Amino acid sequence: MKHFLSVVFLFISLTITQAQFQKDYPYRGVPFTKVKLDDKFWLPKLEINRTVTIPWSFQKSKETGRIKNFEQAVARKGKFCTIYPFDDSDIYKIIEGASYSLHVKYDAKLDTYIDSLITLIGKAQEPDGYLYTIRTMGDTTHSWIGKVRYEKEHELSHELYNMGHFYEAAAAHYLATNKRNMLDIAIKNADHLLTVFGPGKKAVAPGHQVIEIGLGKLYRVTGNQKYLDLSKFFIDCRGQRKYEKKTGDKEATVWQTGAYWQDNIPVTQQTEALGHSVRAGYLYAGMADVAAMTNNLEYLSALNKIWDNAFGKKTYITGGLGQAGNWEGFGPDYELSNHSAYCETCAAISSVYWNHRMFMAYGDSKYIDILERTLYNGLISGIGLDGKTFNYENPMEYNFQQGKLSGENKRSPWFGCSCCPTNICRLMPSIPGYVYAQKDNAVYINLFMSNTTTLEVMPKENVSFSQNTEYPWNGVVTVGVEPANKKGLKFPLMVRIPGWARGEAFPTDLYRYTSTNSMGLPKISINGQTFEYKLENGYAVIDRAWKKGDKLTMNLPMEVKQVVANEKVKDNIGKIAIERGPLVYCAEYVDNNGLTSNLVVPENQTFQAEFQTDMLNGVMTLKGTANALNIENNASVSTKTQPLILIPYYARSNRGSGEMRVWFPTRIKNLEIITE
Amino acid sequence: MKHFLSVVFLFISLTITQAQFQKDYPYRGVPFTKVKLDDKFWLPKLEINRTVTIPWSFQKSKETGRIKNFEQAVARKGKFCTIYPFDDSDIYKIIEGASYSLHVKYDAKLDTYIDSLITLIGKAQEPDGYLYTIRTMGDTTHSWIGKVRYEKEHELSHELYNMGHFYEAAAAHYLATNKRNMLDIAIKNADHLLTVFGPGKKAVAPGHQVIEIGLGKLYRVTGNQKYLDLSKFFIDCRGQRKYEKKTGDKEATVWQTGAYWQDNIPVTQQTEALGHSVRAGYLYAGMADVAAMTNNLEYLSALNKIWDNAFGKKTYITGGLGQAGNWEGFGPDYELSNHSAYCETCAAISSVYWNHRMFMAYGDSKYIDILERTLYNGLISGIGLDGKTFNYENPMEYNFQQGKLSGENKRSPWFGCSCCPTNICRLMPSIPGYVYAQKDNAVYINLFMSNTTTLEVMPKENVSFSQNTEYPWNGVVTVGVEPANKKGLKFPLMVRIPGWARGEAFPTDLYRYTSTNSMGLPKISINGQTFEYKLENGYAVIDRAWKKGDKLTMNLPMEVKQVVANEKVKDNIGKIAIERGPLVYCAEYVDNNGLTSNLVVPENQTFQAEFQTDMLNGVMTLKGTANALNIENNASVSTKTQPLILIPYYARSNRGSGEMRVWFPTRIKNLEIITE
Repeated sequence: MKHFLSVVFLFISLTITQAQFQKDYPYRGVPFTKVKLDDKFWLPKLEINRTVTIPWSFQKSKETGRIKNFEQAVARKGKFCTIYPFDDSDIYKIIEGASYSLHVKYDAKLDTYIDSLITLIGKAQEPDGYLYTIRTMGDTTHSWIGKVRYEKEHELSHELYNMGHFYEAAAAHYLATNKRNMLDIAIKNADHLLTVFGPGKKAVAPGHQVIEIGLGKLYRVTGNQKYLDLSKFFIDCRGQRKYEKKTGDKEATVWQTGAYWQDNIPVTQQTEALGHSVRAGYLYAGMADVAAMTNNLEYLSALNKIWDNAFGKKTYITGGLGQAGNWEGFGPDYELSNHSAYCETCAAISSVYWNHRMFMAYGDSKYIDILERTLYNGLISGIGLDGKTFNYENPMEYNFQQGKLSGENKRSPWFGCSCCPTNICRLMPSIPGYVYAQKDNAVYINLFMSNTTTLEVMPKENVSFSQNTEYPWNGVVTVGVEPANKKGLKFPLMVRIPGWARGEAFPTDLYRYTSTNSMGLPKISINGQTFEYKLENGYAVIDRAWKKGDKLTMNLPMEVKQVVANEKVKDNIGKIAIERGPLVYCAEYVDNNGLTSNLVVPENQTFQAEFQTDMLNGVMTLKGTANALNIENNASVSTKTQPLILIPYYARSNRGSGEMRVWFPTRIKNLEIITE
Repeated sequence: MKHFLSVVFLFISLTITQAQFQKDYPYRGVPFTKVKLDDKFWLPKLEINRTVTIPWSFQKSKETGRIKNFEQAVARKGKFCTIYPFDDSDIYKIIEGASYSLHVKYDAKLDTYIDSLITLIGKAQEPDGYLYTIRTMGDTTHSWIGKVRYEKEHELSHELYNMGHFYEAAAAHYLATNKRNMLDIAIKNADHLLTVFGPGKKAVAPGHQVIEIGLGKLYRVTGNQKYLDLSKFFIDCRGQRKYEKKTGDKEATVWQTGAYWQDNIPVTQQTEALGHSVRAGYLYAGMADVAAMTNNLEYLSALNKIWDNAFGKKTYITGGLGQAGNWEGFGPDYELSNHSAYCETCAAISSVYWNHRMFMAYGDSKYIDILERTLYNGLISGIGLDGKTFNYENPMEYNFQQGKLSGENKRSPWFGCSCCPTNICRLMPSIPGYVYAQKDNAVYINLFMSNTTTLEVMPKENVSFSQNTEYPWNGVVTVGVEPANKKGLKFPLMVRIPGWARGEAFPTDLYRYTSTNSMGLPKISINGQTFEYKLENGYAVIDRAWKKGDKLTMNLPMEVKQVVANEKVKDNIGKIAIERGPLVYCAEYVDNNGLTSNLVVPENQTFQAEFQTDMLNGVMTLKGTANALNIENNASVSTKTQPLILIPYYARSNRGSGEMRVWFPTRIKNLEIITE
């Protein structure tokens, strides 16, 4: 393994990364536990998660045998009840979400139920700390992995993946409840891992990452450096897989090379986002943690290159990652098929994790631009408005072809592999944790939602903040700033000016608006007086002496914009997408005469924004005009003008199955006749 | 190796194949050397082959370094001048074609030139008989095979492939000229192979078949049984390749399994047409030869199954084989994409070889139905009317997409891998050899073209036949029968009634006509009197005492027919193709307002056949009406009626590059908008 670069390369890395960390990220997120939401957009979604999604997921876990798996592991016998050996992790992820929820709103019944599960899990743990129900119940019937003890088949084994999620859940449960029952199981397992893995012991690249993040969290909670070291050890194990060309191999597949699970080359030499997107996102987030906590500039240098590749060439406009369904992962540069876009909900979640960490490393708002785009579009599109139906895939369109509607066009109440629903369980309550951040005496506002928080600002002064906004429907954001100290406090408030509000659709050249920002930079006023701000890394710097009652008002221009993709994206040549604020819009069959594949939207088409309270729990719709192809008697074709109604992409697929699309042709160069 | 089946299975095979051979095929083709063409359709094509294609191919071989390779092999040094180690075989194939031509029309200059090449080749042969210029010149620079001596990389090596073509050429040259100079080189090489390969010696599945056919021909010419045994040995070597699943292999590729070169399972266990189509066709033809000459019923049983699969599920309407361009070969059952159809010209030639042999084994006209369909459509479409431009691929359509015309839409004067042009060189002069066949005292007429021949009919009586027809443009065929014996001769004349003339578009359920044959079976009259014939295996049995001056007249109904594909062929649901007689028709851009992808042909559309003497060297065109999609200003779409002009598929791509198609939508269920 090559852990260390030469001095020359280290020097280059330094200039590239421009960062020097002392044991942690320089920019610290403000945990969700400190931020009290009072937001019309987000609060109902978090409440549905707490009151519907989490109970629903516990119920489904029970129904499908995920809990019985633990009971059988306790009995040390039985036949594995579910499909995937990593199904244990669903329980862990729901517990993580439920723990967050407990903190937000205490629920004794839920607390007791969680404790009962933890007791069960504890009994399923083997005496040495090992925890993996499929093995412990002694079941040898499972067809594709069987009884394993540590990574017999690298890309398939999820022994360590399960544990990564367990540590995350244990840390959350401990922080939320102050109870150690789950944490102790985690520590016992991690201490066992330390006896198995490490320099001079077993060296393995875990089959599905997340143990790296989990160990980082365990380190933060316990302060035990060994957990962090083990995280780094696992990361550095990657890249040992040798691909040997066999007779007949035309080119190596992502499986053959190990790229599927990012095991093709050492992480510090990786420059591209490759393979399974969720694995990749978790790896990059884990690397960022280790980099921050150990000042590893090699990791950061690699992460920068990978990020440029992922978000410069391989991201859908919704923030969705994963172009290739057959390996649930990254495809070639600029190959962004709308039709077959995979964009797994879990990959969106992993992108939020990764981008938040990149922000915490660099303080650049471009990472939050991606985070916000992902959160408001490709991520929450994974959950139905009812809180108990889900999409695993989040493609850019559904089309009728050969009499069938393409893709995963219906939300499901659960999946055989139900990683996405349970990932939603834990992601939703954590959203308030992405709103604020701090560095030195500066306070960062990254996201816009109505909330209140009180932060300790250097030097040790409490300052309360109250955000008020109807974002994303309305661009006016007011922030009340109340230093506890009556004399007030001078500190820089760094208010993110979203890329989209600066006329920049995307932080790379992958997408751009067709028109410039008509009103220039958003206006900010303090107590009614215009404040001429300086822009730094995408943040308005409001460095002043704040006094009780101060009120900042920002007006983000909610214009409807047309977006075009980089011309290297073949699928989007001659097409536009429509955005308003942070939201990507789509057309659904139900609002557009039953079809959307027949719509042509001329360039410069204008739209009227109209809020519909009675539609999709209240959404801002956009109304314009399209030319629609009309087929009569399966024989004659004409074009006619018809109203075009767009809804936010996240709200798609809540009114039955039918055509949907994000990218609209602006012209018809040719037509392909479909006969079935 | 399992050469022998159990008694039980042998018994089953017997009933399946219903054949018992004595040292050769029961049905014997009449060699082209005995058939003198006088046909308006074929003779000009054979003449162009003799006067243009063959000289052109010799010239191109010289220009590209194919001959220099031999000069360097003679010198035992140098750098291989061309791209592929099998480029030697091009010379051999042209010599084969040129030898046939010499026989048809003697040309002293050509004879001398061929002799000079044979001398050169003889000097390039190594002392022990080995012959492979890339190795003998000592060149080690070639990147993908280098210096080999027998099959280092099974699927790539063409050492034995080159020799197979050499034997074929040597046999042809010997038969055409009675000179032994080329044959002696072949025998020297084959005798060398006998010291290397065989039971107890080296056992190898040749990387590209044809050696099997070549050894069969050498056996016929020399009577040396060992050559036939070696052919069988090579065939039985197949199926030894073991596929070992590697971590990450989702499914085995045709390369990994060896299916690419039909090495995945023993030939007697093969049931599907798999892998590279040319390799496959040559293998099956070679197996049929060995089966016929050794009465191998296991081979025949396998060939029947493979044939059913190939022509029941994997053949284009033009007779084209090979759905998958990336391995130039067979794809999955019923996956017959029009757009990406590969249909290599060489694969069509290998299909002619195979089907002719299947006919010779069984005497069933269904094999000739495939042979005729292939010959008149997918095969001769590979050569331009000028005789010196070629298509390697023969797809079902060319479409404009993303501003580009799909596929290999332009004929080329030569190719880096120029197997198809040189295969055309040798196939064309051999065509008269597919017209007649004999079994016992029966004479078979398989193809219809103006010609004369004199055959020895049992018991040793000469009978002359003179066919007169304007086929394929006109369905009237007259056959003059003249027994030399003034008393006449009783013998069955078996006249093939083509499947298409019996209302059967295809011998399997892969394609069918939309309408029944309005006039019933074709009428046959003898000397003006209707002859009520019995149909046997697709042949009209005219068993009578023939007398000098007897004249048989058959009238094949040249109706224009619509064809539909089996509904399992997804690409052709809701589409029709148009045929007349043995010809498949297509629409080309040049006759149809510049496009063909915009045409809809309603069911039951009628067509007028009209012969155009000034077009494409004279072709029967079909005129009908189509609904054409019309796009104005890249914005509005309408449908209008316009004339539809069809030409025979074989004549496509002789008037520049543009859209072309064989299958026409009959309805518009949906439209895909193409923006670029």
